[in-house]
Amino acid sequence: MKRIIGVIGSSAVDRNAYDTAYEVGKLIAEAGATLICGGLSGVMEAVCKGAGEGGGTAIGILPGSRIEEANRYVDIPVATGLGHGRNLVIINTASAIVAISGRYGTLSEIAFALQSGKPVFGLGTWDIDGVIPCRTPKEAVDKALEDIKSRH
Amino acid sequence: MKRIIGVIGSSAVDRNAYDTAYEVGKLIAEAGATLICGGLSGVMEAVCKGAGEGGGTAIGILPGSRIEEANRYVDIPVATGLGHGRNLVIINTASAIVAISGRYGTLSEIAFALQSGKPVFGLGTWDIDGVIPCRTPKEAVDKALEDIKSRH
Amino acid sequence: MKRIIGVIGSSAVDRNAYDTAYEVGKLIAEAGATLICGGLSGVMEAVCKGAGEGGGTAIGILPGSRIEEANRYVDIPVATGLGHGRNLVIINTASAIVAISGRYGTLSEIAFALQSGKPVFGLGTWDIDGVIPCRTPKEAVDKALEDIKSRH
Amino acid sequence: MKRIIGVIGSSAVDRNAYDTAYEVGKLIAEAGATLICGGLSGVMEAVCKGAGEGGGTAIGILPGSRIEEANRYVDIPVATGLGHGRNLVIINTASAIVAISGRYGTLSEIAFALQSGKPVFGLGTWDIDGVIPCRTPKEAVDKALEDIKSRH
Repeated sequence: MKRIIGVIGSSAVDRNAYDTAYEVGKLIAEAGATLICGGLSGVMEAVCKGAGEGGGTAIGILPGSRIEEANRYVDIPVATGLGHGRNLVIINTASAIVAISGRYGTLSEIAFALQSGKPVFGLGTWDIDGVIPCRTPKEAVDKALEDIKSRH
Repeated sequence: MKRIIGVIGSSAVDRNAYDTAYEVGKLIAEAGATLICGGLSGVMEAVCKGAGEGGGTAIGILPGSRIEEANRYVDIPVATGLGHGRNLVIINTASAIVAISGRYGTLSEIAFALQSGKPVFGLGTWDIDGVIPCRTPKEAVDKALEDIKSRH
Repeated sequence: MKRIIGVIGSSAVDRNAYDTAYEVGKLIAEAGATLICGGLSGVMEAVCKGAGEGGGTAIGILPGSRIEEANRYVDIPVATGLGHGRNLVIINTASAIVAISGRYGTLSEIAFALQSGKPVFGLGTWDIDGVIPCRTPKEAVDKALEDIKSRH
Repeated sequence: MKRIIGVIGSSAVDRNAYDTAYEVGKLIAEAGATLICGGLSGVMEAVCKGAGEGGGTAIGILPGSRIEEANRYVDIPVATGLGHGRNLVIINTASAIVAISGRYGTLSEIAFALQSGKPVFGLGTWDIDGVIPCRTPKEAVDKALEDIKSRH
């Protein structure tokens, strides 16, 4: 059974969101799960960095058509050439989602995840009906892993 | 100058949302603008029907790979084969968006529109920061047309 | 029944291919069918121009995310944001394909059309098993229309 | 530097093509490169199986929206929801392509690769201008690796 957790959030972040994302990535990796994200900067870079330091694998689903645009912590870059459409690939592939901070792009992904029946665990993100708010990276990752386990 | 207005909303609707969508489609057509939507049932069917009766053109951007899945009021069916990804095609093509009722799919489109800098006029839909709430189909269509005019 | 004919070919063409494409567009329009193409320059521009002068409608399926990139003869621009992936939208939507001249991009579309079971009528294009070679624009358009009629 | 080699070919194959694909996958893995393919059956299954037995990583870019459709030798499944459009993701991500046998789907991918300036090494596949024909899996993989090395 593949356990792939998607992490979504903005490319422009403050220190706090960056640290939160780093911690989420590290916890995903330490649990032996695989990370999937958008592969660029901000939340995406932090979570990949954390996954690497936790000994895990980071998949980066890129908007452009060149793998060189991936941040340097991505292990598996995938160049979609789809622009924002690449967000759907992240949601389709992940079994559960952790949303960190974010603006409209993150909201669009949250909504698509909920439409697809994927659980979304939130850390300082949009307060939308259906998102499960969490207080710490550990709570979000633990709940995501429990949710995946309960459905397989 | 092309004036293309996107209308988004659920495939499952009550009588009230259906009538609202029909009226929106009719007003878009009577103003000489072009309608673009998802081409299926519910809000999509109603707005195409209205556009047709107003003497206009309805473009239906379909999720599947066969034009036969379009509702019968679509004039220009486009079979994308992209699934939910077709929503981005609607937003990219429209100059302004009217959102009617809707659940997570509509929220995902609203968020993507706001991320893309397209104005969103709402009729009984998600109350998200950035959406301009309107009370009547006429208010929504008038504001959408004014907005397009002011930017060209 | 919608009769939509896709025309594919390069953006960089010589005078001969341009004139051929223009004639194909005019014949499609005069037969009352709808044209779909990639909406840019070269073969795409010529065929849209022909369709307009024949009194028909030209749909342009664009690679980028802005309708402004369409050539000026496109009536219905659709901004996909998919890059080359927009070629599949053209093939999925058309009932028959006319291929004019072209390089690898055209070959990729021809192959995808044949894979999808859509007939391809060729004018000075790739000599691939499955493509029906034609000598004149009239032969290609007549055969495309006959083929659509025979299958509906 | 990431060395990612794309392998394309049909889902329906004879014994010979299956064995060729298996050998290609094994050689890619033994060279320390990463495999990317369509993740389904036939050539895709064989090449993933070979990559696994060679100690490498197999990325499967799937047409549907569920990772469960991947063959059991895929290490990193990516569910695109794009249908045939997923082929472009394979080509965009790979630095070089090995094409094995195949019908129109493979031809479409070969043409898109050549259009994108990616080298294509062929094993019993379409004889298209631009494809470099090879006699053995070893010749194809060696040439693909040399080509990647020469361009970085």
